Amino acid sequence: MSRRGLLAGGAVAGLGAVAAAVALSGEDTPVPVAATGPLDTGTATVAFHGTRQAGVAQDPPAHAAFVAFTLAAGSDKRTLSRMMRLLSDDAARLTRGVPALGDTDATLAVLPARLTVTFGFGPGLYRVAGVPSPVADLPKFSIDRLERRWSGGDLLLQICADDPLTVAHTQRMLIKDARPFAAVRWVQQGFRRSPGVQAPEHTQRNVLGQLDGTANPRGTEIDPAVWNTDGSTQLVIRRMRAEIEKWDLLAVADKENATGRRLESGAPLSGTNERDEPDFGALDDTGLPKMPDFSHVTRARVTDPGLKILRRPYNYDGVPNALGHPDAGLIFAAYQRDIARQFVPIQQRLADKDLLNEWITPIGSAVFAIPPGCAEGGWIGEQVLA
Amino acid sequence: MSRRGLLAGGAVAGLGAVAAAVALSGEDTPVPVAATGPLDTGTATVAFHGTRQAGVAQDPPAHAAFVAFTLAAGSDKRTLSRMMRLLSDDAARLTRGVPALGDTDATLAVLPARLTVTFGFGPGLYRVAGVPSPVADLPKFSIDRLERRWSGGDLLLQICADDPLTVAHTQRMLIKDARPFAAVRWVQQGFRRSPGVQAPEHTQRNVLGQLDGTANPRGTEIDPAVWNTDGSTQLVIRRMRAEIEKWDLLAVADKENATGRRLESGAPLSGTNERDEPDFGALDDTGLPKMPDFSHVTRARVTDPGLKILRRPYNYDGVPNALGHPDAGLIFAAYQRDIARQFVPIQQRLADKDLLNEWITPIGSAVFAIPPGCAEGGWIGEQVLA
Repeated sequence: MSRRGLLAGGAVAGLGAVAAAVALSGEDTPVPVAATGPLDTGTATVAFHGTRQAGVAQDPPAHAAFVAFTLAAGSDKRTLSRMMRLLSDDAARLTRGVPALGDTDATLAVLPARLTVTFGFGPGLYRVAGVPSPVADLPKFSIDRLERRWSGGDLLLQICADDPLTVAHTQRMLIKDARPFAAVRWVQQGFRRSPGVQAPEHTQRNVLGQLDGTANPRGTEIDPAVWNTDGSTQLVIRRMRAEIEKWDLLAVADKENATGRRLESGAPLSGTNERDEPDFGALDDTGLPKMPDFSHVTRARVTDPGLKILRRPYNYDGVPNALGHPDAGLIFAAYQRDIARQFVPIQQRLADKDLLNEWITPIGSAVFAIPPGCAEGGWIGEQVLA
Repeated sequence: MSRRGLLAGGAVAGLGAVAAAVALSGEDTPVPVAATGPLDTGTATVAFHGTRQAGVAQDPPAHAAFVAFTLAAGSDKRTLSRMMRLLSDDAARLTRGVPALGDTDATLAVLPARLTVTFGFGPGLYRVAGVPSPVADLPKFSIDRLERRWSGGDLLLQICADDPLTVAHTQRMLIKDARPFAAVRWVQQGFRRSPGVQAPEHTQRNVLGQLDGTANPRGTEIDPAVWNTDGSTQLVIRRMRAEIEKWDLLAVADKENATGRRLESGAPLSGTNERDEPDFGALDDTGLPKMPDFSHVTRARVTDPGLKILRRPYNYDGVPNALGHPDAGLIFAAYQRDIARQFVPIQQRLADKDLLNEWITPIGSAVFAIPPGCAEGGWIGEQVLA
């Protein structure tokens, strides 16, 4: 991953016909750009095999498709294991830039662009397999306005890559693999900034203009929050419709009170820089807390590092209606060791009182256990389904 | 545009903590990467003002939204001119990376990522203005299965940028400007390869895996095909649904016969390289033409340089149905001086006989005149509406 983005965007082409001497040096020996072969954004890969699945701890690529399935009637452990062998095998190929086994458009497989395929198992899959489920459906929250078309699912594929055509092709090949075993329940397509638009360590903005993910665990903070000792983790996906037209009516100061952060810098209202720890005891000139009690940051805060969640959200932007009102929002995706201990209490606090509830409506919700990764020759789910 | 893509993708960040000596040289004096400021993919701009509108001759950025409007009842030349002044002003700002005049999310305006906004006028706009229209609705073609929800329109905004969040924000701001004057009729969102995945001079593949745009006019060939002397041009947009599951049933050789080109290289069946001119007289060992009579390339060919069209297509990939059948295809967008003389005869030949018709269905269609560009302080449409 260290080479990611080092070369990109037609570096060679950009120099045109001008004789150009370009030297790049990083951790490796300097090489002239002309000798580096294909551009790195397209050819970069993330290893599929390992004790943990890919697509969790890596910086999220620019594009994602979340594909949820309902298992066919009559499924059992045997059919599930057949399905997961097929899916794991093709996912491993595609993430290396190799066509799927029966790839009908092999030419679309050659630019993986950091492709990852992450498999999640919903409570229904464990029921079918006759195995206790590590995840349970979320409790109902007062703020929820859930629609079935964005909710639930027995099996999830989270497909991420820095290129949308790669995501589309991967989705198509893997849906074909799953088709004999399961029906497509919902698909949510999302985006972040394109590769190269911002450096990976920069927090990205969502469709409401908020910096989103500032409080995420980073580096060594990720392990205790996200990974169980067997290499498994858990994923919550919530589709959050942004009530953008209402949000637009607010003054900047009101938006900042709702979130608890400065809009431009992302700094907590008690601080000056984005990464400053919020000071919930700080008072302003009038003796009121600088961090409002009902602000999103105040309500969502978690101090125990083992109870944090790793947000990995994507924006969505559908088609506006005839009046021009947008259909946009956030595909909130968050990883953690244990949804019941980590996500649920946070969401409960936010549902009880969080100013942001006025401008964000949960319209979809699903939970998935993310089984451990697999070694080469193995398959995802083998611990449960073999 | 020469700097486009020269720096990108976290070039600075990719070097990590390692002391790095990076020198880049192109048309300008070499500068160290650390001194170049924000990454170029996000900050690159395309000039809005000029005698011709932007978004036509430039390499298409990775993301596009085509937004068509129906004018409000009671519109007249005066309301149209008011609308176009507002839209032109905000488009000029946003393409520079400056917030729209009443921008409710100013933080989303700062990374234009080669943003262009191109305005098109449909026949209905000219009717309202009481001025003869340079474009007329297309004749009905036998292959058409047009749906109203993807067809027609009085006003078009073609919004393109290398970043999807920039496209979403621009779309939202400009729809707000237009809202008092027009209803959203349809929106088509499309994508090409992400910035940096392929060098700009490489032909891109569509969702069927075909190299798409090989025969496009290039460089000095563009002017005689695309631009009228007053700086105007004309645009056809057709939504082409790909019958992918049927296409998948074909062997590679059958796909190649249908298109007239090798799938992998894009070379005509009479040649060896993508850019080789097809030789329609060449015969194979059995005495049959190497370029089949009914192939797409054979049917679509144009020899007169003034009758070529400039294709600027985007892929679309909607949500598959429960059976996993994709909703994908091409937003075919093509520029030319005169639709009646250029696009219509080509489409007529393709409708009459083109093997590809089996695997591509036109489900949307619209035509727009693209008025000349404007100088700073001017507005698009001033020649017609002032």
